Amino acid sequence: MIRKIAQSAKDASRVLATLSTEEKNKALLSIANGIEKNKAKILSVNLIDIKNAKKNNLSPPLIDRLTLSPQRIKNICESLKQITKLPDPVGRVLSKTTRTNKLKIEKVSVPIGVIGIIYESRPNVTVDAASLCLKAGNAVILRGGKESINSNIALYQIMINSLRKTKVPWASIQMIKSTDRKMVNRMLKMDKYIDLIIPRGGVGLIQFVAKNSTIPVIKHSDGICHTYVDKHADIDIAKAVCFNAKVQRPGVCNAMETLLVHKDIADAYLPQMIDMFRNASVEIRGCRKTKKLVPEIKLAKEKDWATEYLDLILSIKIVSSEQEAINHIDTYGSCHSDAIITKDSSSADRFMKEVDSATVYVNSSTRFTDGCEFGLGAEIGISTGKLHARGPMGLEELTTYKYLIFGNGQVRI
Amino acid sequence: MIRKIAQSAKDASRVLATLSTEEKNKALLSIANGIEKNKAKILSVNLIDIKNAKKNNLSPPLIDRLTLSPQRIKNICESLKQITKLPDPVGRVLSKTTRTNKLKIEKVSVPIGVIGIIYESRPNVTVDAASLCLKAGNAVILRGGKESINSNIALYQIMINSLRKTKVPWASIQMIKSTDRKMVNRMLKMDKYIDLIIPRGGVGLIQFVAKNSTIPVIKHSDGICHTYVDKHADIDIAKAVCFNAKVQRPGVCNAMETLLVHKDIADAYLPQMIDMFRNASVEIRGCRKTKKLVPEIKLAKEKDWATEYLDLILSIKIVSSEQEAINHIDTYGSCHSDAIITKDSSSADRFMKEVDSATVYVNSSTRFTDGCEFGLGAEIGISTGKLHARGPMGLEELTTYKYLIFGNGQVRI
Repeated sequence: MIRKIAQSAKDASRVLATLSTEEKNKALLSIANGIEKNKAKILSVNLIDIKNAKKNNLSPPLIDRLTLSPQRIKNICESLKQITKLPDPVGRVLSKTTRTNKLKIEKVSVPIGVIGIIYESRPNVTVDAASLCLKAGNAVILRGGKESINSNIALYQIMINSLRKTKVPWASIQMIKSTDRKMVNRMLKMDKYIDLIIPRGGVGLIQFVAKNSTIPVIKHSDGICHTYVDKHADIDIAKAVCFNAKVQRPGVCNAMETLLVHKDIADAYLPQMIDMFRNASVEIRGCRKTKKLVPEIKLAKEKDWATEYLDLILSIKIVSSEQEAINHIDTYGSCHSDAIITKDSSSADRFMKEVDSATVYVNSSTRFTDGCEFGLGAEIGISTGKLHARGPMGLEELTTYKYLIFGNGQVRI
Repeated sequence: MIRKIAQSAKDASRVLATLSTEEKNKALLSIANGIEKNKAKILSVNLIDIKNAKKNNLSPPLIDRLTLSPQRIKNICESLKQITKLPDPVGRVLSKTTRTNKLKIEKVSVPIGVIGIIYESRPNVTVDAASLCLKAGNAVILRGGKESINSNIALYQIMINSLRKTKVPWASIQMIKSTDRKMVNRMLKMDKYIDLIIPRGGVGLIQFVAKNSTIPVIKHSDGICHTYVDKHADIDIAKAVCFNAKVQRPGVCNAMETLLVHKDIADAYLPQMIDMFRNASVEIRGCRKTKKLVPEIKLAKEKDWATEYLDLILSIKIVSSEQEAINHIDTYGSCHSDAIITKDSSSADRFMKEVDSATVYVNSSTRFTDGCEFGLGAEIGISTGKLHARGPMGLEELTTYKYLIFGNGQVRI
């Protein structure tokens, strides 16, 4: 069954790769129309997922994630229309050269082919991922979380029905409807048909995929993001930026999870900062030195440093040097987003050079790691891998390239 | 043991990433000096590998591959000096933008980190791979074929001794000296330390690596390269280009292995072409239709279409349409280099769009797929994968990027 899905996707991808921007945009608008028209149906199917989630005692944030509303459906359709307005990432001439033998060599962006996406339980990802892949000329195989399976299937049906009226083959969008993890394992072996797997989720899923996939993987893993307040920090900037990084939206991957503070500035900065956090109901888990300074807080355990809380919880560590901060990030971080607050340019330089993360900030909030904030227009997620795409992954990162060589009889001597 | 090697490489890579172009170039020149000074020693150790190879009845082309000579050692040193002259691929600003909130976002090229290279039995690759990785700021873990193990170890020792006099940590170059395949398997699990694996070799090795690696892989696989002579081909160009693609250097991955010919031009073109090939001692294995036209040739078997001969052997198939040619390449090709010979621009366009290979040619020899011929200066190999690097992989492809974000207190609203 999985083989058939993968093969159909590959066949469709060949057709899709040859379509014009206009034809792809028409298909995206047709999907937006389809979803608008079927709003009531989607909402009623979504209620089944919500009921099941409540029956299974899912946490309120998880239930919120899988819940659709008229406004959220409107947002999905808006996002589809936005994508039609973005430039087509396919067919860009990345470089062009004529060699001394008159051979013309062009490096041109082309679709990747077939992309498998394994994601958590937000039904909007079903449409976002499919539409970004489609705009970049790729067929997609979707495999969403079991908690939103009914909503996903409904959205998938509407999408492929909407494609039937367009030049984009309906088989360009495929869904694995079984929630059995064995199916994922089989999908990960279809290297003959699938060109790329994007897993979005926690460490467990990412490791499972890395271990079992014979297909290239671009992981979208946890965000264990740090802010390091250097001894040369502007304390007002440190307070504003750290507060924002933790509190503005704690449930997302670019929120700060650990605050590192240089010992020379701890007395002047930390007690006030911790007060601000506690007033915003942030639970603080600090190292021994932090607890000495502010005894009311909890003591952090080793595993706190490696935890993505996605909640109003923050771990704090006082460090003796910038080197210790960099080493801490190297040991516990997830290569996502890390920041330094400092007025000293050489400390900033060093931090930016040595911290091995996708995005490294000076004097600003890690919350900016986002395709739209970076000007990419839209994103399929944040890559925490280093190959092909790093950080926010937009339409261009959903393409690859090929070399086209134009000759008139050249032979190699 | 492998863990220790990988960990040392990672530690070294952090230092290497911060070094200047001048410091890296000094290290490359020091290696060139070391090899020049130890020429006699290298040649005598190489003799052991040659003796063993003869004892084990290795084929003459394989023995030739692992043989070093004063000239070949000179070429290795020349190549090192060439690499010092190439621009540093690290620190390029790939894009730069200032957002409306005055946040400055720079996308900058950085080293990948630690690269594991698994390669066949050419000792020159030991030095080429290490020096390209080093220039791009990466530590490297080398794992060469067992046939040249003594030569590889000698070259490795000279390289790390030469580094001791420079700022590049000697641990930046590591070698797995055991020829046990279990060691490769262990290396492929070191995703905590190794960022990228590049396997260079046949389908068996590539599949083994893809199956067992938890580290991202960029495969450098076989070249099953095709030339399709369209019904609108210029026959003189077809003859010259196909002869060159097969005969000029048959033992390399960009040589043609299969010739596809449109039925409407077969009578006018194929008998003369086959004559030319047979005069150059090329063994022809043709489809039934080809054999009908030139009865002296062998009949091709199914497996011929999927074979990289690397020898003076050519399979030939007469096809009824361009579509059949494209389908044949899709079924049997290796996504390396494929060419069309035609005067018709719409046939050329279609071929270039639909053939899913790293390099696609019109009216020229597939033999041009090469980093130097493409103007990349040097190459670590030809990627037959689609992610990160495709086709000739030079210094730039040995880097990744990170986003550096400069603010003065920006927070997300």
